[in-house]
Amino acid sequence: MTQVRKAAAIGSGVIGAGWVARLIENGIDVAVHDPAPGAEQRMQAVLDNAERAYAKLTLAPRRTKGSVRYCDSIAAAVAGAALIVESVPERLDIKQKVYAEVEAAAAPQAIIASSTSGILPTGLQAKMARPERLLVAHPFNPVYLLPLVELVGGKETAAETIERAKAIYTALGMHPLHIKKEIEAFVADRLLEAVWRECLWLVTDGIATTAEIDDAIRYGFGLRWAQMGIFETYRIAGGEAGMRHFMAQFGPCLKWPWTKLTDVPEFNEELVDLVSTQSDAQSGKYSIRELERIRDDNLVAILQALKVKDWGAGRTLAAYERQLVDAAGAAAGAADLAQPIVTLERRVPAEWTDYNNHMNESRYLQCFADASDALLRLIGVDADYVASGGSYFTVETHIRHLDEVAALEPVTATTQVLEAGGKKLRLFHRLWHGDGRLLATGEHMLIHVSLTTRSAADPAPAIAARAAEIAAAQTALPWPEEAGRAVGQPR
Amino acid sequence: MTQVRKAAAIGSGVIGAGWVARLIENGIDVAVHDPAPGAEQRMQAVLDNAERAYAKLTLAPRRTKGSVRYCDSIAAAVAGAALIVESVPERLDIKQKVYAEVEAAAAPQAIIASSTSGILPTGLQAKMARPERLLVAHPFNPVYLLPLVELVGGKETAAETIERAKAIYTALGMHPLHIKKEIEAFVADRLLEAVWRECLWLVTDGIATTAEIDDAIRYGFGLRWAQMGIFETYRIAGGEAGMRHFMAQFGPCLKWPWTKLTDVPEFNEELVDLVSTQSDAQSGKYSIRELERIRDDNLVAILQALKVKDWGAGRTLAAYERQLVDAAGAAAGAADLAQPIVTLERRVPAEWTDYNNHMNESRYLQCFADASDALLRLIGVDADYVASGGSYFTVETHIRHLDEVAALEPVTATTQVLEAGGKKLRLFHRLWHGDGRLLATGEHMLIHVSLTTRSAADPAPAIAARAAEIAAAQTALPWPEEAGRAVGQPR
Repeated sequence: MTQVRKAAAIGSGVIGAGWVARLIENGIDVAVHDPAPGAEQRMQAVLDNAERAYAKLTLAPRRTKGSVRYCDSIAAAVAGAALIVESVPERLDIKQKVYAEVEAAAAPQAIIASSTSGILPTGLQAKMARPERLLVAHPFNPVYLLPLVELVGGKETAAETIERAKAIYTALGMHPLHIKKEIEAFVADRLLEAVWRECLWLVTDGIATTAEIDDAIRYGFGLRWAQMGIFETYRIAGGEAGMRHFMAQFGPCLKWPWTKLTDVPEFNEELVDLVSTQSDAQSGKYSIRELERIRDDNLVAILQALKVKDWGAGRTLAAYERQLVDAAGAAAGAADLAQPIVTLERRVPAEWTDYNNHMNESRYLQCFADASDALLRLIGVDADYVASGGSYFTVETHIRHLDEVAALEPVTATTQVLEAGGKKLRLFHRLWHGDGRLLATGEHMLIHVSLTTRSAADPAPAIAARAAEIAAAQTALPWPEEAGRAVGQPR
Repeated sequence: MTQVRKAAAIGSGVIGAGWVARLIENGIDVAVHDPAPGAEQRMQAVLDNAERAYAKLTLAPRRTKGSVRYCDSIAAAVAGAALIVESVPERLDIKQKVYAEVEAAAAPQAIIASSTSGILPTGLQAKMARPERLLVAHPFNPVYLLPLVELVGGKETAAETIERAKAIYTALGMHPLHIKKEIEAFVADRLLEAVWRECLWLVTDGIATTAEIDDAIRYGFGLRWAQMGIFETYRIAGGEAGMRHFMAQFGPCLKWPWTKLTDVPEFNEELVDLVSTQSDAQSGKYSIRELERIRDDNLVAILQALKVKDWGAGRTLAAYERQLVDAAGAAAGAADLAQPIVTLERRVPAEWTDYNNHMNESRYLQCFADASDALLRLIGVDADYVASGGSYFTVETHIRHLDEVAALEPVTATTQVLEAGGKKLRLFHRLWHGDGRLLATGEHMLIHVSLTTRSAADPAPAIAARAAEIAAAQTALPWPEEAGRAVGQPR
């Protein structure tokens, strides 16, 4: 049931449009209803941003993009949809009215997911004919990039609805977090609300401007929270004694009057003016569209950085890519050995670039070394073989740098076996840009060694045979013009 | 006055040791006083983490690491120090007593910086003889990686002290944030305190576990806050209408009872048990040391990702690297040009080794690329020159791998200029083990380019002249036998 093919979106504001973007980028057709004037045009801006971000987010083979269709009525939008996403204004009466219209036209098994930031699902489902299929699925802006979705069921929500929803959002590359006890504002927004209130006090009291508060966040604990939450961070701060020590040390400060607990700032025109004016001074040099794209690029870079670390939101991205690869049925083992073999496919990590704003030269060799490793695995030099004491060492390398590649751009390596015999393995790699440009060539002489003596030794017969098989299959390939060349003349 | 050469650290717990690490990694000698048993050993663990993180943080040429010396008394530690960092327990009477001892022995112009998380600087300086040189410089754990430092002056703090401190912390790669009005807990910790209190309510009320709350942070708004703060994020959420629209929409919810405002959870054994037990279940599979290193690796990756985007904390890292590059360029001027020039000196980081238990082949090229960069700086290709639009790109490389080198072993590169003329620069590097073995040779053809057109162009006359000067000085050197050779025969 995770394979949703058709969905409906009721309401297409910032959050609703973000959902539509995530759905169509994952190959799901979406029918949208939103009676507000200009809704379709505003949604298109979000879809454009999402398309731009997904082009950078992952190299994995993507599903064919889903379609978007605007409908005049809720009934038309929900017909045939397996998932119905409600993102209308935050008023219980409005939402209940929408659900009545939805239920009149939707398939009885369709999941109805509310994007509400704070209203209890038990209240939302109170007047429904089939309340068991309603849940809250609360996302975070930008919905198409941030993995978190809080899932909250009401008293009538079926356990099976939560399980189906988990599978659906996981397939969309998200991290569904099931909040097991319903409270207003759920979990994340309670924390945000606490911070927001304290921020408004700091501005109201003239302690710091909006720009200074933002800097206090993004140069400090914001960096921590992109990868570990508050408890894991404080566990570390407690040192070897861990959380108990931290609690003992910092628990008592709960009683200190550090935050303004018992009062809320007066919400008046003056406060709105103060915050808006400071925000203009801080961010007014960028349009909202520019800010969105800066934010999206930063988030993509952070997600990819964490993916390399296989941690947190990066692990979610890695799992998503594996799903995509599996879904595409990519069969690597069935390569045509008579052609150069694809031995590397990746995007250039942001941290691989240097002061010239392109991939650093040493990363070219890293790509080629990874391509050599892939070729070695193909002939049987895997972890078990290395553990048995055999391996190949590179003894000589010749690289020609032909073109530039920038951060986050896609690269592919193909490998031709020039010679395989005795202890020698001579490889020729080409590094390609995703747009078809040849970026570099690498010629490499590898020698088989015994890891015990650290000197040259024959490979195991199965390894030698597999290497010879590939070399033989590739003899018909043209000899690369760069092979056998030197950097310059001897003196 | 930004060039601090000697500093003192009074107190070497997690925060004090983090300061010592940041100082010595930036070439500053530090004298430490901490009477606690085992303090030196615990500090060493922090210094080891920092060394490991800095090896990955930046490829820029680093200052020679500063020394650390433990002292028996405050007087011995502060003698001759230009910066005195106080990180003793959070009690006003203890801190005031420390300052009295510091002032009795310190240079009169030395800056005294308190790491306090919350005590007002006006109170800290109340009994000082020269209160004008005291300020709060409040850092965030891990101090050696997170850029934020809140600077807060008291009533007696001189404006000049704040300015000197800003310059000092900027030179340490930090983002000094001057909080202009002193309040308890300053800015960041007030926000953290608000979140922490709400988190404890969520755990106490059984709404979510520590692991679930952490996930609600790191899969959602934590990713936002690593690059934009709360105001800039909400400005975007307001759409084209910006902050005023957001305030109008969400202002009223300040009155909603979403956060537990009027009360604090009872801090008792039960709460400590609950949080500690959940934290063990969440993170107990890692030791604190492992968590520290995971955190540090993630932070390094995020900082580097944001550096490529030239945004927020990444922009701070970029500015720091430019400082280091400029400083190294100034230092390299005095080499004997008639001999191969020492262009790299380092130890092999542990993560540079591969499954064959030696330095990975791509790291050989990284050493050579760094050596090329050092040679380029020597002929005047520094950050300013690159900013003006000129640079050299490597177009061809030939490496011979002659011997192995293991993790943490010392390596040195020497560089011979084979040709310098027109747009061409042909370099020959040798990579040496500290024991005298030749590990590898690298021959490299570099072409000068315009960074605007991204194609070949003549270097500035001063650059060309300096390159020619070195090439001429080295003509008497023997021609390297490996230069001008190919990996193998053409077919």
